[in-house]
Amino acid sequence: MARNQLQSLNCSVADALHLVGEWWTMLIILEAFLGTRRFDAFQRNLGIARNILSTRLQKLCDHGIFRREPIHDGARRHEYRLTEMGLDLLPAVIALMQWGDHWLNDDRAPLVLLDRKTRQPIPKINVRAADSRVLNIKQLLATPGPGATTETRERLKLLAEKLTNRQSGT
Amino acid sequence: MARNQLQSLNCSVADALHLVGEWWTMLIILEAFLGTRRFDAFQRNLGIARNILSTRLQKLCDHGIFRREPIHDGARRHEYRLTEMGLDLLPAVIALMQWGDHWLNDDRAPLVLLDRKTRQPIPKINVRAADSRVLNIKQLLATPGPGATTETRERLKLLAEKLTNRQSGT
Repeated sequence: MARNQLQSLNCSVADALHLVGEWWTMLIILEAFLGTRRFDAFQRNLGIARNILSTRLQKLCDHGIFRREPIHDGARRHEYRLTEMGLDLLPAVIALMQWGDHWLNDDRAPLVLLDRKTRQPIPKINVRAADSRVLNIKQLLATPGPGATTETRERLKLLAEKLTNRQSGT
Repeated sequence: MARNQLQSLNCSVADALHLVGEWWTMLIILEAFLGTRRFDAFQRNLGIARNILSTRLQKLCDHGIFRREPIHDGARRHEYRLTEMGLDLLPAVIALMQWGDHWLNDDRAPLVLLDRKTRQPIPKINVRAADSRVLNIKQLLATPGPGATTETRERLKLLAEKLTNRQSGT
């Protein structure tokens, strides 16, 4: 039921969570980013029940985030590889990791990602303007996009009015 | 049980999901980014059951992501405001939104975020090096950080060996 509700929200965050918002899914994807490909390795590294892992991987394959391929030509056993769609989750996963490193682990990160070229840790991921200025939420303006429903347009209009009132102190 | 398992993983993504990985939580946070502060407004905009919303907001307050404050000095009614910790989830939320816009909504975004200064849409969030190069997963090297357990160190060592073998074609 939660999933159906999410789908009705006219929101890409809701749509994304519909696919990757289940307990283990983001961790399976992180595991794959770290180089894990085989079912048994996912299972062992995450300590996840086999039936849950199997269901999650099936769903991720069905939705094009992973693809299943033979471990070598003609092999019967297969492994799981992130597709272009799956690989494109990297910024979301790393942003979440950096947030957890800072706020939940006092900057004592379990895992540090280095730029292979310079061997320096990668900097914090930020929302940036086209000219690279770091933007906070007050520097952003939410507007209806091409996929906005009438309801979304109305909500954003109301929110804009509320924000204007707040700024003028009413 | 899933939550306990997540906590044992020595991973900031798992730690982050422990707090913000429940169905509605990221959407409540997005709602707050859009300007929503009152319980009734969260409830109406998300179409979420009051008891679920109440539980989620309480947990988010307990963990320092939201703070509860009177709607004006001396008022009995209160509203929910993101703390610095909550506001710092912006890159993760926007990265997820952009992924959903592109892969699930064919770039027909319901919501477009503009840079207030230029009124231009914000660019895609990427993982970048210190010198601003966009980095993909192959350009990153995962190393144990100051918070790594012995188990994490061993796992990363095994992964590094596996990646080296793959690159040399064995």
